[in-house]
Amino acid sequence: MRWFHLCKLPGRVMGIRLLRLTSVVIIVLLLVAGALTALLPTIKDDKLPNSRREPKTQTQSALDSFTLIMQTYNRTDLLLKLLNHYQAIPHLHKVIVVWNNIGEKTPEEMWNSLGPHPVPVVFKVQTVNRMRNRLQNFPDLETKAVLMMDDDTLVSAHDLAFAFSVWQQFPEHIVGFVPRKHISTPSGVYSYGSFELQNPGFGNGDQYSMVLIGAAFFHSGYLEDFQQQPEAVHALIDETQNCDDIAMNFLVARHTGKPSGVFVKPVDIRNLEKDTNSGYPGMWHRAEHLLQRSYCVNKLVNIYDGMPLKYSNIMISQFGFPNYANHKNKM
Amino acid sequence: MRWFHLCKLPGRVMGIRLLRLTSVVIIVLLLVAGALTALLPTIKDDKLPNSRREPKTQTQSALDSFTLIMQTYNRTDLLLKLLNHYQAIPHLHKVIVVWNNIGEKTPEEMWNSLGPHPVPVVFKVQTVNRMRNRLQNFPDLETKAVLMMDDDTLVSAHDLAFAFSVWQQFPEHIVGFVPRKHISTPSGVYSYGSFELQNPGFGNGDQYSMVLIGAAFFHSGYLEDFQQQPEAVHALIDETQNCDDIAMNFLVARHTGKPSGVFVKPVDIRNLEKDTNSGYPGMWHRAEHLLQRSYCVNKLVNIYDGMPLKYSNIMISQFGFPNYANHKNKM
Repeated sequence: MRWFHLCKLPGRVMGIRLLRLTSVVIIVLLLVAGALTALLPTIKDDKLPNSRREPKTQTQSALDSFTLIMQTYNRTDLLLKLLNHYQAIPHLHKVIVVWNNIGEKTPEEMWNSLGPHPVPVVFKVQTVNRMRNRLQNFPDLETKAVLMMDDDTLVSAHDLAFAFSVWQQFPEHIVGFVPRKHISTPSGVYSYGSFELQNPGFGNGDQYSMVLIGAAFFHSGYLEDFQQQPEAVHALIDETQNCDDIAMNFLVARHTGKPSGVFVKPVDIRNLEKDTNSGYPGMWHRAEHLLQRSYCVNKLVNIYDGMPLKYSNIMISQFGFPNYANHKNKM
Repeated sequence: MRWFHLCKLPGRVMGIRLLRLTSVVIIVLLLVAGALTALLPTIKDDKLPNSRREPKTQTQSALDSFTLIMQTYNRTDLLLKLLNHYQAIPHLHKVIVVWNNIGEKTPEEMWNSLGPHPVPVVFKVQTVNRMRNRLQNFPDLETKAVLMMDDDTLVSAHDLAFAFSVWQQFPEHIVGFVPRKHISTPSGVYSYGSFELQNPGFGNGDQYSMVLIGAAFFHSGYLEDFQQQPEAVHALIDETQNCDDIAMNFLVARHTGKPSGVFVKPVDIRNLEKDTNSGYPGMWHRAEHLLQRSYCVNKLVNIYDGMPLKYSNIMISQFGFPNYANHKNKM
């Protein structure tokens, strides 16, 4: 009815009013269209993958290779042994040695004099001897994948090549060789341990809820993520000089909402501790080491106001290796 | 400028023209908005999952349980033995027995007389003895997961419970206990086999490109998918009375673009063939059985104009079962 009345108005006036009305309507519709466009799916940030997608096409080596990060303290003889081994691992892009021997010269000169080497090795001199130094977001990192190794751990090339291929299928997880778990107790206090602790009660067999980063592959984006964590987390790691790996598992579990790790059963993994001339026995020999780790689990639950770790019982091995018929059954 | 001229027209005429114009503009904008709305991410069809998402919330049992489909021919004694075993598997929702004994009465009466039973068992009487009868999209199916078993295969409850939990993490794959592979040859002709065939050349160890459906979990949506396949595929299976499992692996590989299967190493899997009184030895004893399967691989590549199967070397076992420390290493 109103339109009819509008028509009776003088032409110019009605024209201008209609013009305004239509302009308003058009603007509103354009805003709606704009809002809908904003809701269209956006290209997800590749930095922290959250599904089992194929990685985006970037420089071939950035996706198909990994960076070894090895922190070292007071075991330079082991370091050099291990460097000779790891420098030749397939798909290795670069080695970053985190040099925690404060004030001491790196073996860079010696390293260069014994060149050429298959891959570049970068010595990152630290100013303070901190456990979490290895979790910096190093600018030298060019690959999506990081292989983190303790400076006393030797894993065979076969195991590493296989585990890397597994990581490529589970890029959002920590894919490694050392599983651990936490246990809930009726008091609500958590405890940390391995298979000697009772099964958390999920049926047959055992479960793990963490994969330690001292022998594991994970996405380099998690280093940046770690730097963003609450100060209390960094303080905890500094206070204990321990637990950086537990913190990383909390971080990954929170990010994915799934079990943080995927356990790959190693065929050949060795601890070279006893082979060192330095006499330095390694942190895990300290009497309080395991108690500290239980302490860390509870502190982190406090900091994050919840327990994000999830259990898994998936154990991955390589089909037909080393035993060509290792999948055979007596059927 | 045009607007100015429009203003000079008699009020009513200009009003109506502007009205028409604005109506057209508004309609166009609404159409654009509608198109944008249509581009918004839609809730994906749950029927054929294509990522490692958590399943949608539906009836609890539909997601947390599976349906056993067991086709049987001339081995009713084994069938009944197996039914007593499988009827008590955790998370089993229902059993569908595909009765290929044409013209013969099912053991339903006897079955009912020996009730009650833990789960319903449905006997689907067939009119023609076809290998692919078991791949019908049975209306009795209420679960997302199917467990398909040959009528001479006994898999332990532990293995099945674990493999089901693995399937829930890989719902788009065939998760099962029997891996096989295809090999390319320089002539371009494919061959079918197991570990006795040479590794396809991917480095260490062996690879598999199929998981047989005679002892495997897969998504029930693939049954509908199978019915949609080209007539030539159905004809091939009917011609050979074989290869339905190879066809399913082709189907799944084409659907996912990934290796079709995930191999779970069984702890206790047994073939009960020799225990049958029927004297019926099973199809795979026929002299031409393996040659037929190589034939099928090449035929399917022809039909689909390409080889969709992909290799995997992932072997999954249960952490800490049956040996509580089966993940231990000598580190």
